[in-house]
Amino acid sequence: MYVSLKDVAARAGVSFQTASKVLNGHSRVASPSTRERILRAAADLGYVPNAMARGLVRQASVTIGVLADDFSDQAVSQFVLAAQRAAASRGHGALISSVHADIDAELAVRKLLEYRVDGILVAAPSLEDEPSLGAALRGPLPVVSINRIHGGGVPLIGSDHAMTGTLAAEHLLGLGHQRIGTVIGPRGRQVVQRRMRGFREALRAAGQPLPERRIVEADWTYDGGWSATHRLLDSDPTITAVFVHNDVMAMGVLKALHERGLRLPADCSVVGCDDLSFAGYLVPALTTVRIPFEETGERAATLLLDRIGGKRIPARDLLPVELVVRESTSSP
Amino acid sequence: MYVSLKDVAARAGVSFQTASKVLNGHSRVASPSTRERILRAAADLGYVPNAMARGLVRQASVTIGVLADDFSDQAVSQFVLAAQRAAASRGHGALISSVHADIDAELAVRKLLEYRVDGILVAAPSLEDEPSLGAALRGPLPVVSINRIHGGGVPLIGSDHAMTGTLAAEHLLGLGHQRIGTVIGPRGRQVVQRRMRGFREALRAAGQPLPERRIVEADWTYDGGWSATHRLLDSDPTITAVFVHNDVMAMGVLKALHERGLRLPADCSVVGCDDLSFAGYLVPALTTVRIPFEETGERAATLLLDRIGGKRIPARDLLPVELVVRESTSSP
Repeated sequence: MYVSLKDVAARAGVSFQTASKVLNGHSRVASPSTRERILRAAADLGYVPNAMARGLVRQASVTIGVLADDFSDQAVSQFVLAAQRAAASRGHGALISSVHADIDAELAVRKLLEYRVDGILVAAPSLEDEPSLGAALRGPLPVVSINRIHGGGVPLIGSDHAMTGTLAAEHLLGLGHQRIGTVIGPRGRQVVQRRMRGFREALRAAGQPLPERRIVEADWTYDGGWSATHRLLDSDPTITAVFVHNDVMAMGVLKALHERGLRLPADCSVVGCDDLSFAGYLVPALTTVRIPFEETGERAATLLLDRIGGKRIPARDLLPVELVVRESTSSP
Repeated sequence: MYVSLKDVAARAGVSFQTASKVLNGHSRVASPSTRERILRAAADLGYVPNAMARGLVRQASVTIGVLADDFSDQAVSQFVLAAQRAAASRGHGALISSVHADIDAELAVRKLLEYRVDGILVAAPSLEDEPSLGAALRGPLPVVSINRIHGGGVPLIGSDHAMTGTLAAEHLLGLGHQRIGTVIGPRGRQVVQRRMRGFREALRAAGQPLPERRIVEADWTYDGGWSATHRLLDSDPTITAVFVHNDVMAMGVLKALHERGLRLPADCSVVGCDDLSFAGYLVPALTTVRIPFEETGERAATLLLDRIGGKRIPARDLLPVELVVRESTSSP
């Protein structure tokens, strides 16, 4: 199916070795006229260099592997795209392997190793507690991750989750809210615990409690945010504001508040996290804490390439987050 | 960095050739005890088979290449994920190469060819008119696409775009609407022209015109849908319904209609296309034409694998679409 080096050599009337060396950039092995004949034969036949053969020669390809969760998660897709661009701008390719749902983490890592990638970027927050992923990534290959990896030892590039919780709380407190609820992600997840800590401490510093009845757990989805909000209002109908752990759930929260007949933001303020591209187009436009997904992807790829190049990189690098105020928050 | 076959052979005390053959499944070249020694050495050292070396032996890897547009487009990410799953369920891996933005189409294809993929799946609707992509894909390698490829000749797996326009028009006509506007995607795109044709013909069959002032073009984005709606209402304030060419723009359309102070759906009905995961959580929940992205990805991967296996596949395979009625449409 593919034109081989052998075909090129035959067409140019030279040995396989000579054709191989010339096409791999060792020009001095042949006279200028032979060199030209080989290059012309390659062009005529539509020869494409074989990355696998070159990989064998160099013992490693010039490619980074990306191990990614569900792409339909905008946070993951933005990260992967940015990482890919950063690699491309330094002349490196990226192979993406997906670990979502029925695709096994160990197998996905193995696939990347079989292709002899130079290093692996991990963007798989849903697998932070998965021992098999931690085990599969243990080894001599450089790895950088945007989420915790079970067993530790992998440099972490991310954002300041505690600060996210703090910013949301301080914004709502500053508007005068005194009964604030929260729709959180799964309690076991690091990001959830850190956001909760920042949020709770800011409330405590302002002399406000955060009773359990004002905390409801959901699963990051539209539907999870929607049903959590109905549970939250059933358990404490007096709340005047909600901090939601991602923008996707926040869309479900707004929907549920509309269904309850509340005027937004007059009757209930909402703050999200992420600042996904739709945040400004919700009704009302969503106030949210911006997580720098693109910058994180770019930074992670750059650090991985540095690491592959033999440089030391920090064990932990947290990028700043910022509050984006729109229409979904006001005084109670 | 990687343990080589040479290391395994040395540890087992056998020749490179023997170790290679045993680890590639040719068990008869060695005695059972030698075989066991080689397998144990490989396990002890953490040897990972080299897909590139095996590729050279077989002249092709067991991997399909996926050439994908912007992953942050939910339609593309759903398609890619489904294709990847379908390949995995038949024991094949997938390498994804992205052609979004500053990543060149020709280079992205070349990367896949360099890895000696067995075939290529294309999900790059924004590049349907790109001659360089058409040229790069011309050749002996099996290719299947979900969008038109410049120059033709590539089997197309997609959905029935004309039917999408027809279903939207018939639903709105059935509710009694007589002045219907539309927010379309870029006019040059095939999908836009086909949806327009189905939509226009259904209106004409009902004795209704579609004057130019009721058609506005946008760029598939939230913001594009939002500003197009303001232009549409400026050019014809009498419309009572809007057909929008994707759900992302429809979110911007709803936002603009809210800003105009219209009650939805009483003052203006909206029909989208796609049925993305957020459609049911908009306010009001969006009536839309469901495009079967996952089924398309699965079908495309299956047909590509059939084609790689030497089977004949259809030049064109359009999956059916269906109307999903929610809250954003009613009688005028």
